[in-house]
Amino acid sequence: MSISFADPTAMTHQQLEEGAAFAPRFDAAGLVTVVTIEAGTNDVLMLAHMNAQALALTLETGVAHYWSRSRAKLWKKGETSGETQQVVELRTDCDQDAIVLVVNQTGRGAACHTGRKSCFYRRVALADGAAVLQDTGLPRLFDPANVYGAKP
Amino acid sequence: MSISFADPTAMTHQQLEEGAAFAPRFDAAGLVTVVTIEAGTNDVLMLAHMNAQALALTLETGVAHYWSRSRAKLWKKGETSGETQQVVELRTDCDQDAIVLVVNQTGRGAACHTGRKSCFYRRVALADGAAVLQDTGLPRLFDPANVYGAKP
Repeated sequence: MSISFADPTAMTHQQLEEGAAFAPRFDAAGLVTVVTIEAGTNDVLMLAHMNAQALALTLETGVAHYWSRSRAKLWKKGETSGETQQVVELRTDCDQDAIVLVVNQTGRGAACHTGRKSCFYRRVALADGAAVLQDTGLPRLFDPANVYGAKP
Repeated sequence: MSISFADPTAMTHQQLEEGAAFAPRFDAAGLVTVVTIEAGTNDVLMLAHMNAQALALTLETGVAHYWSRSRAKLWKKGETSGETQQVVELRTDCDQDAIVLVVNQTGRGAACHTGRKSCFYRRVALADGAAVLQDTGLPRLFDPANVYGAKP
């Protein structure tokens, strides 16, 4: 990992919000939250996390890398499914604790492990005062059982 | 708060990912991560968090409510600035630990406390192996000093 980042604790509020130094504010677990969107449409594909290594690898290689919290390991997106993400732009927010990653989704165009384009394939609706989920109709672009085995 | 949510710990993986019960998986701090995007353009406006109360109020009122981690209190977006957010749609992701909130941004159209439309007004670029920030050129739609006082 050759890219290092500025130390946010050494910066003023003004420097953090308006400056040109990239000083990602990793949380207590060493992670920043990442919203990955599709170039062109701005469709939100997924929400994930990066540690410093994943962030540096993403910038260096131009291919999205994350930190898998469930598997507790570095995760090159698409390493199993083939659904890699080519980085178009990486943005940070005012207080530098979040990232927007603009990508071209390769493979079958499915960012979600369920085989859909986006992880956000259900909307919340109110029915008789209860919150229920409705499928927004995103088709499955692959069968998870074929890609990940019987238990995705 | 009249809306209650299903208990995700009582559900199978299959029910959580493909079912119709809304069972938000609040983290250890009682929060889910929320990506707020603009209806129509899909522009990412901000990233924030909701606790159960903020989520229920958002669904009930159709106006975005969050949990402010820095102030440790319920936060009706725009209560100070007037930049409220009218909810168009609320979606959840495969494992129900994240929310996409689709809104119409009211007021001057500035979701960010710096007065810009979006909090993500800087891109990360590499220059001589170092990561630096470049302003993407989003204009300030209000002056934070006028809206929040001298120290926003």
